[in-house]
Amino acid sequence: MKSDLDRLMKDRHLDAMIVEGADGLSDVSAPWKYLTRGQKMTGFVVKKRGEPAQIIYHPMEQLQAEASGLALVSFGRWDLKAIAKASATRLDAGVELWRQIFRDLEVSGRVAWYGATEASSTIALIDALRKALPTVEIVGEYENSVIDAARRTKDADEIAAMENVGRRTCDVVAGVVALLKSSKRRGNVIVDDKGWPVTIGMVKQFIRRECDAGDLDVGEPIFAQGRDAGIPHAHGEPDAPLVVGEPIVFDIYPRCRRTGYHHDMTRTFVIGEPSDELRKVYDDVKYAFDTILGEYKAGERCKQYQDRCCEIFKERGHATVQEKWPLEEGYTHSLGHGLGLDVHEALAFSSFVDRGDTLEPGNVFALEPGLYYPSKNIGVRIEDTIVCDADGTFRSITPFGHEWVIELDA
Amino acid sequence: MKSDLDRLMKDRHLDAMIVEGADGLSDVSAPWKYLTRGQKMTGFVVKKRGEPAQIIYHPMEQLQAEASGLALVSFGRWDLKAIAKASATRLDAGVELWRQIFRDLEVSGRVAWYGATEASSTIALIDALRKALPTVEIVGEYENSVIDAARRTKDADEIAAMENVGRRTCDVVAGVVALLKSSKRRGNVIVDDKGWPVTIGMVKQFIRRECDAGDLDVGEPIFAQGRDAGIPHAHGEPDAPLVVGEPIVFDIYPRCRRTGYHHDMTRTFVIGEPSDELRKVYDDVKYAFDTILGEYKAGERCKQYQDRCCEIFKERGHATVQEKWPLEEGYTHSLGHGLGLDVHEALAFSSFVDRGDTLEPGNVFALEPGLYYPSKNIGVRIEDTIVCDADGTFRSITPFGHEWVIELDA
Repeated sequence: MKSDLDRLMKDRHLDAMIVEGADGLSDVSAPWKYLTRGQKMTGFVVKKRGEPAQIIYHPMEQLQAEASGLALVSFGRWDLKAIAKASATRLDAGVELWRQIFRDLEVSGRVAWYGATEASSTIALIDALRKALPTVEIVGEYENSVIDAARRTKDADEIAAMENVGRRTCDVVAGVVALLKSSKRRGNVIVDDKGWPVTIGMVKQFIRRECDAGDLDVGEPIFAQGRDAGIPHAHGEPDAPLVVGEPIVFDIYPRCRRTGYHHDMTRTFVIGEPSDELRKVYDDVKYAFDTILGEYKAGERCKQYQDRCCEIFKERGHATVQEKWPLEEGYTHSLGHGLGLDVHEALAFSSFVDRGDTLEPGNVFALEPGLYYPSKNIGVRIEDTIVCDADGTFRSITPFGHEWVIELDA
Repeated sequence: MKSDLDRLMKDRHLDAMIVEGADGLSDVSAPWKYLTRGQKMTGFVVKKRGEPAQIIYHPMEQLQAEASGLALVSFGRWDLKAIAKASATRLDAGVELWRQIFRDLEVSGRVAWYGATEASSTIALIDALRKALPTVEIVGEYENSVIDAARRTKDADEIAAMENVGRRTCDVVAGVVALLKSSKRRGNVIVDDKGWPVTIGMVKQFIRRECDAGDLDVGEPIFAQGRDAGIPHAHGEPDAPLVVGEPIVFDIYPRCRRTGYHHDMTRTFVIGEPSDELRKVYDDVKYAFDTILGEYKAGERCKQYQDRCCEIFKERGHATVQEKWPLEEGYTHSLGHGLGLDVHEALAFSSFVDRGDTLEPGNVFALEPGLYYPSKNIGVRIEDTIVCDADGTFRSITPFGHEWVIELDA
């Protein structure tokens, strides 16, 4: 939680942290969103250990800076024009600006550096700052940074925001199911009122509109049928019509425009009667999902649940990533991931290595077992977003049922 | 252009370049999009000078890898599981993977590193690679990287793609104008058929739907009225109703979902009669826009057009950033920027320093003079996307007129 930041900085001997904002027009990084209440703007956040974070902002973006709730420092405090004129290159100007910021805000010692900036310019800037500014020691963190570590556990406000986006996401999925149910069948193809085939592109347009109306940024939902359903990250061919009997993997992970938090859920549907083979695969995934949801315990290692899932699938005759990687068919991925301001955050449920992640109150993560047989046009995944409450109990915040066979109304 | 890459790498003594893809679910960086035809996926691009670029991809994302048109190298070529098991930390595993990739793809010498990754992990990874791999020298570029330099000039396919997104963006703006014209007036407030106030939030929802139907990612359009119109990056208050007589700054910079290229345009509208003061500000901006569009010459420095714009505005009684920065009221920003896969790309039309940018055939850039008086509820900006053709002539690819006073139909 945010309230852990000073303690985490102390544990890691950090005196300060810097977060660079993005170009105001593109997406900002999760560290920036986390510290600024999701403001989309340029600028820098400077936080010294034990002191409130400050935001250095351009006057053009004053409204956003105020909305961040941070202590305000205008770029007007420094004479950017004089710095630019006195510098041979933009890199020199950047170094001089940081020298003055560090001097005036009294930043020194070990400083961690964050922000999703282009690697090439980050490398050049950090090289130059290290050479020019001996009083600061800029350090990188490859994984589980101070900010990542704080974000691992969500506070009550964050969990409320995530429950909210979960309900709204389920509304969208319910709308898609209603749309499919109201369609008709012509031979093996699903058609609309006027007899036109219902394509994946049309369904996706519906999904985007419903998300937009619900103030959700939809991202790139997966709505993939048949062979594509068997390739976990295939997004579905827009022009392909829906057909009966083939599995549809519908994976949606929208972000609330207001709070910035994500939901992540997947349902697998079939229109009309599934084959026995598909039904068995579905039942195996559902069994793994239910079993593992019932077995989570606070304090336990995340990795053991991936091992458990592999064990369940092996018992039922499926190949898993535990025996072979990369694996083409069977259980080809890991069991889940933390989520929050990013769809993928810390908490790894992977079979490769035990990163030592354990479950604790405040964790929010995806549970997503799946089985994939693209050669048989089969793919099934079921995914809910799970919360570990303060008392150490686990619950799904994806209020959506598991009926998967869609019978057409007509 | 892409065909310049090998020459640019030679000029800068680069033997190879690496581009890291993003997490497959979030947005990828422009260098990645540029080299992969916009594929959204994880992985690495490795390009050695004088050789075709190769894409290292996960089997889960094979379809996207194939669509990149690059030479395919599966991650299956390396034993990631064994590397992970033999490594104490994920960072160690990352270093070992790169050691094997460099060995097997025969990469050595000066290597530039790209990709929009979190700064903190980039710093840690590059520090570790430099220590562990003495045969490669990893270099950063603070500005105008090899990829930026190639992207400065667009080839015929890119310009055709940008003309296409320009036409579709203008269709959306025309739709908004039609929506406004069909509204009614009640006192000073604009209302719909049923008498409800038309709010900025409603107009934005319309904009988002129109963009979506046109297969455009809309991003965060600016639709700001009155005082907010006077703050260049204010996005507009969703609940504020539109009123007569106040300027509306409508700045939209969508991205084509298919090609990844952006358009960027701004129109300022007023519903009903503008005040004389607003009209003068509008006329001054329009005069600057027309004058400068008529004066562009290939081979000239970009900076001189910003100077020229300041001169025009000064003559007409406005303060400009040439005299004071930051400036609260007057001409508070720069004249434009290159655009393409990003909304903001190389080509700076800034008054601070002359970065030496010159205009040349293949450039695509925004022309966007504006004047801002938030204390008077006035803000006006006009913006087109401009192309420099092969013969050195300039033209707007924003086919939209400059009628700005909207008379209501009713």
